[in-house]
Amino acid sequence: MLEGYRGKAYEILSKLNIEVGDLIEVRKGDMVIKGILLPSYSKDEKIIVIKLDNGYNVGLSIENLSEIKLLAKASKKIITSEEISPKKGKSEVKIISTGGTIVSKVEYETGAVRPALTTEEIIQFLPEINEIANIEAEILFSILSENMKPEYWVKIAEAVKRAFDEGNNGVIIAHGTDTMSYTAAALAFSLQSLQGPVVLVGSQRSSDRPSSDSAINLLSSVILAKYAPFGEVVVNMHAESSDTYTLAHRGVKVRKMHSSRRDAFQSINDKPLAKIFWKERKIIINRDDYIKRKEETKLDSKFDERVFLLYYYPGLKSEILEFIISNFKIRGMIIAGTGLGHTSSEYVEIFRKATKDGIFVGMTTQCLFGRVNMNVYTTGRQLLDAGVTPLEDMLPEVALVKLMWVLAHEDDLEKIKQIMTTNLVGEINMRHSLDLFPRWSHE
Amino acid sequence: MLEGYRGKAYEILSKLNIEVGDLIEVRKGDMVIKGILLPSYSKDEKIIVIKLDNGYNVGLSIENLSEIKLLAKASKKIITSEEISPKKGKSEVKIISTGGTIVSKVEYETGAVRPALTTEEIIQFLPEINEIANIEAEILFSILSENMKPEYWVKIAEAVKRAFDEGNNGVIIAHGTDTMSYTAAALAFSLQSLQGPVVLVGSQRSSDRPSSDSAINLLSSVILAKYAPFGEVVVNMHAESSDTYTLAHRGVKVRKMHSSRRDAFQSINDKPLAKIFWKERKIIINRDDYIKRKEETKLDSKFDERVFLLYYYPGLKSEILEFIISNFKIRGMIIAGTGLGHTSSEYVEIFRKATKDGIFVGMTTQCLFGRVNMNVYTTGRQLLDAGVTPLEDMLPEVALVKLMWVLAHEDDLEKIKQIMTTNLVGEINMRHSLDLFPRWSHE
Repeated sequence: MLEGYRGKAYEILSKLNIEVGDLIEVRKGDMVIKGILLPSYSKDEKIIVIKLDNGYNVGLSIENLSEIKLLAKASKKIITSEEISPKKGKSEVKIISTGGTIVSKVEYETGAVRPALTTEEIIQFLPEINEIANIEAEILFSILSENMKPEYWVKIAEAVKRAFDEGNNGVIIAHGTDTMSYTAAALAFSLQSLQGPVVLVGSQRSSDRPSSDSAINLLSSVILAKYAPFGEVVVNMHAESSDTYTLAHRGVKVRKMHSSRRDAFQSINDKPLAKIFWKERKIIINRDDYIKRKEETKLDSKFDERVFLLYYYPGLKSEILEFIISNFKIRGMIIAGTGLGHTSSEYVEIFRKATKDGIFVGMTTQCLFGRVNMNVYTTGRQLLDAGVTPLEDMLPEVALVKLMWVLAHEDDLEKIKQIMTTNLVGEINMRHSLDLFPRWSHE
Repeated sequence: MLEGYRGKAYEILSKLNIEVGDLIEVRKGDMVIKGILLPSYSKDEKIIVIKLDNGYNVGLSIENLSEIKLLAKASKKIITSEEISPKKGKSEVKIISTGGTIVSKVEYETGAVRPALTTEEIIQFLPEINEIANIEAEILFSILSENMKPEYWVKIAEAVKRAFDEGNNGVIIAHGTDTMSYTAAALAFSLQSLQGPVVLVGSQRSSDRPSSDSAINLLSSVILAKYAPFGEVVVNMHAESSDTYTLAHRGVKVRKMHSSRRDAFQSINDKPLAKIFWKERKIIINRDDYIKRKEETKLDSKFDERVFLLYYYPGLKSEILEFIISNFKIRGMIIAGTGLGHTSSEYVEIFRKATKDGIFVGMTTQCLFGRVNMNVYTTGRQLLDAGVTPLEDMLPEVALVKLMWVLAHEDDLEKIKQIMTTNLVGEINMRHSLDLFPRWSHE
């Protein structure tokens, strides 16, 4: 595919069988430039964009190039439909249902909504599953995801461990979409060694509606759970307004970004791990830095809830924070600060006292996209000096869940700081390419 | 421009001199379809997308069309470079500086950063301004925007009123980017009748860096402040990673979405009001529903800070909220809830008691994009029953600033509810087109 290319550049590149993601070499005068072809973000249709080895992107006018060579096609791994079919016999994919829209079934006589994920009901709803994998379903509980709590995260993590111990190739968690990304993060930190994918799936429109995404999301999750080479927790949901494919997002890098769209879930500061084409029964692995399936599934699911997420805004009274710290004996706090990681400088002394008392204070940005950098401005440096820990490009919500997990395992503030700033399961991405920021329509 | 179109469709459309935004008519078999050409969002390069009168978008394969007709060019109002030049004499644009990166000047001897927006320094920095408008600068104060507070919003609003009373055509507020959108919302509610644009502008990279956006943002703000037909508060910042144009975003619909990119500011649930081409000295007005310049500038700037923004997450202890309500005598609260507007149902009774006690409780979504709808799920209905007010598609931060403003003007809860759900200055957008949601790259 040649995303974003038009006119002259499109013509030349497609003639050379070059696609986005391919390694190419171009010559401009005496200079030879080698790198990966990126999607075009230029209004000028003669410009091609290449990612160099040093991480920089360069835009070149195709008219000034004396030579363009395809060195290697993109090395995307593709799992095709021929490989996707079930062995006979025991369960290969376990579907654990926790509640939410995807598992609700409306009883037409009474109008009541009830969970509907027994093994038989799933097969009845989606007979195609039989052609993909042997499944087994378990109703763990049935709660709306807005009522999800850390104690339920532990129960889900334990059910995942059991499912792999039973010999399944992958596990699906049917979950309400409201707090799905929080649960995904909690599972990712709890299950850092996994024999296969843990796929969280939900639906934005219930299955009694014609535009429901239940079937597509569930079917592609079965494909993913059984066949993907991942040993990590992913969220698998609709990718775009049409029904072409779903996306497997890394569980610690995904966020619900729209209240109602089917493609509400998107990766933030990260690329999705895979595209799943449900109709073609095909998985395209987007990246090669995924965490591989491990020999053993290890469970370590403990959370300390004595934390607080401080969403900073002008006018927020510092007394409220002092109050929370002193009255609720919190052990840690995540700030969703402004810009590169700031609050009003009024807070500096409160944070200094807190960190002196052994309370962890970590900084993220309410911008969501981008990374905190507290060395640029005075306030940032003051906050650093007061002991606030910058948390790179972690989402505020993910940092909070990680903190709950870390606090349940460590008492020493220095060790807590060290683990919070160490990338455990992909929650910190140190390399941002330009195209991680989505594009708004300005027309 | 033919944004997103490639190949066949691009070829045909450009031959017919059709651009995005034009009114076209196509014929498919017996069917005649009339509508506005939208940017292409399709992977299939044969598809063209048309917005019908009823608001729906339809994608059509260009190969199946027997006729394509241009009915009318896009009716975008364009203010051209010929119209953009200064009259001689008194100040036409007032530049009020409040602090932040755009006004900082590094003293190379000492390394200290100091505000640099005297009239002379601005002209020295950007002599081109002289060709556009007569300006006058005022240093109101010099604070980092993370230290901004409601009491400063009042001072800025008063300075804006003075500037229009002095006869200026438009006012520019130089402001740090961290909390710029909060200030923009505060000014929008304080100055609901304006003789001209109030343009908030900042810079993401300071002017001593080669990639600084200071000059472009400031120059285009002068063009906008003097010539735009708006009587509203806008944020004018870099639009894309290249330097082509800036965007004027409605002050109550904009958010800083990236910690460091120059195009960090983007409209959420809304389209930008205008594009400003600084080099060509041209304004393209994007929409016709902007608020027009009024005869008189009216100032009503009061804020009640007894509010709280509750960012909901699983594990948040309801006791913390009860504590804040009882100890800080808050009069109102905005919830950044999950999905369509939810919290754990544990909170229902707390909210019921709060609203009975006359406290306003309003619901927004932490998804940011989309609208709350509390009629879909049980928890939403319970929250509604408990007196929680759904706030449509308002951003949590904007709802909070609006609430501070409303509480300073009203005591009666029913009246407060009514004003909070009434669109005052564009903060509620009842019509969402599909392309308001940005596009993520999935490659």
